[in-house]
Amino acid sequence: MPHIAYDLEGRMEILEVGPRDGLQNEPVVLAVADKVELIARAVAAGARRVEAVSFVNPKLVPQMADAAEVMAEVPRQEGVSYSGLVLNPRGLDRALAAGVDEVNVVVVATETFSRRNQNRGVDDMLAAWAQIAGDARAAGARTTVTIAAAFGCPFEGEVAAERVLDIARRAAEAGPYEIALADTIGVGTPDRVRVLLDGLAEAAPGVRRRCHFHNTRNTGYANALTAVALGVDTLDASIGGIGGCPFAPAATGNIATEDLLYALDRMGVPTGLDLASVIAAADWLAGRLGKAVPAQLGRAGVFPATG
Amino acid sequence: MPHIAYDLEGRMEILEVGPRDGLQNEPVVLAVADKVELIARAVAAGARRVEAVSFVNPKLVPQMADAAEVMAEVPRQEGVSYSGLVLNPRGLDRALAAGVDEVNVVVVATETFSRRNQNRGVDDMLAAWAQIAGDARAAGARTTVTIAAAFGCPFEGEVAAERVLDIARRAAEAGPYEIALADTIGVGTPDRVRVLLDGLAEAAPGVRRRCHFHNTRNTGYANALTAVALGVDTLDASIGGIGGCPFAPAATGNIATEDLLYALDRMGVPTGLDLASVIAAADWLAGRLGKAVPAQLGRAGVFPATG
Repeated sequence: MPHIAYDLEGRMEILEVGPRDGLQNEPVVLAVADKVELIARAVAAGARRVEAVSFVNPKLVPQMADAAEVMAEVPRQEGVSYSGLVLNPRGLDRALAAGVDEVNVVVVATETFSRRNQNRGVDDMLAAWAQIAGDARAAGARTTVTIAAAFGCPFEGEVAAERVLDIARRAAEAGPYEIALADTIGVGTPDRVRVLLDGLAEAAPGVRRRCHFHNTRNTGYANALTAVALGVDTLDASIGGIGGCPFAPAATGNIATEDLLYALDRMGVPTGLDLASVIAAADWLAGRLGKAVPAQLGRAGVFPATG
Repeated sequence: MPHIAYDLEGRMEILEVGPRDGLQNEPVVLAVADKVELIARAVAAGARRVEAVSFVNPKLVPQMADAAEVMAEVPRQEGVSYSGLVLNPRGLDRALAAGVDEVNVVVVATETFSRRNQNRGVDDMLAAWAQIAGDARAAGARTTVTIAAAFGCPFEGEVAAERVLDIARRAAEAGPYEIALADTIGVGTPDRVRVLLDGLAEAAPGVRRRCHFHNTRNTGYANALTAVALGVDTLDASIGGIGGCPFAPAATGNIATEDLLYALDRMGVPTGLDLASVIAAADWLAGRLGKAVPAQLGRAGVFPATG
């Protein structure tokens, strides 16, 4: 039976965010060697972009204090882009010194969340982004911006699409490689994905679009596949679906790389990733974290059964 | 911000299958009073159809041996349809004697699974369905047929859409109120949902379409929301997402009523169900089953926060 052809130019890209967004929200802190192994396993499974580390205040995010060590020890593979999250020029300096290929800046869509999370308002963050983007580009690094809480805010509740798109419009002036819409607390639904993605294409014409979904309320995969159907060709996901949500401590985290990959494989969407290798990496990671991971594929098994 | 209007005629119906498909696949067997309370809680939360029991061989399915007692004790509410699953004329006699409003017959899409699950081949089951449909209609009961393993078979692997649609075509000859497509083992993806639903509309014109999804591999909600977008107006779900999958014992079960409802509420799709009541019912049910349920809403919380 033929599958529906999804309208993709080339392959779908899964940006592996487990080493950063995943581990940052896990209570267990992995050793540098384990962080390096997670990144290496993602790359060995076929990932061509990895959000490997963040260069933020180590007092606020102790899980990422060893970012420079991780970047120094990770084996670099040709054709793979290793990304670091930064929030200010000092972070950019550290990221460039550590040799990242790209820097990702997070701008939160609401004032309250921005001030609580980054100690600055939205306008200040957009100004910081513009400076970082210019400096990073001058240093030869790719720059991306992620709009957090784009589907809802833990403090302010509903977030108007126009507010998100206004931020996108202003962020686009600094010439990003890509703008990402992040459902940071996992409240989005497919109708909202469509509204924001259509709006983003108008607000930032010619800029690549990426989406970042959490499965906190079981809408993450529906949102992700809606984004795929709408022509987005990069999705964030984390091996094992690790990461959690700091605003819903009992809930699950990012959409899982292996569960997303299963769906894309079944739909005939090429990604370049090997499902068995990702499942094996999640199994290894569960052992290091000392807990079961939220991803389902490891428990349910691949279908049709292979081997 | 306006939500996308989904093209629905009136409200979306969630058929509560927790009391039957859910409990049947749980290791803990609830007492009759608890089963009755689960059904009553579903109805109090707004459900207008409940798959309450099954009338199958009690030696094979001991969890449902008390079906007649459950139906005798459950408080009947005007406007609510209480359904029983049957597989043969003897089951139909028991169902009618117990006073069900509708009977649901399962026809499995593959020979191997049909013989293993129901001890009969597909042709025999279609003949049984035709007889049951006629007898049930004569007795004033609504009749529905569910095509199981429509998205994949645990024994035969891939299931061709043409095979499923051929069964639908033959089942339609007996004049069902509704034909359901069931992803019994949770392997489906949205592209396949579209192919089967488009095909079903052609194979059984004028017959209502229902879908039954499991979230075994985290595609259940994406499939469900795809079906909604394609105009299906009845979806099965179970309170708490209980049920599991006998072919993947560690995996989760049906899509959860509350998680589906959360998404539909956010998208502005009316259902008549009250989310807080469903979450409370799931919390109660988790206590009776002595375990956490797979649904996420109870852990993550409703967004935007209410009250």
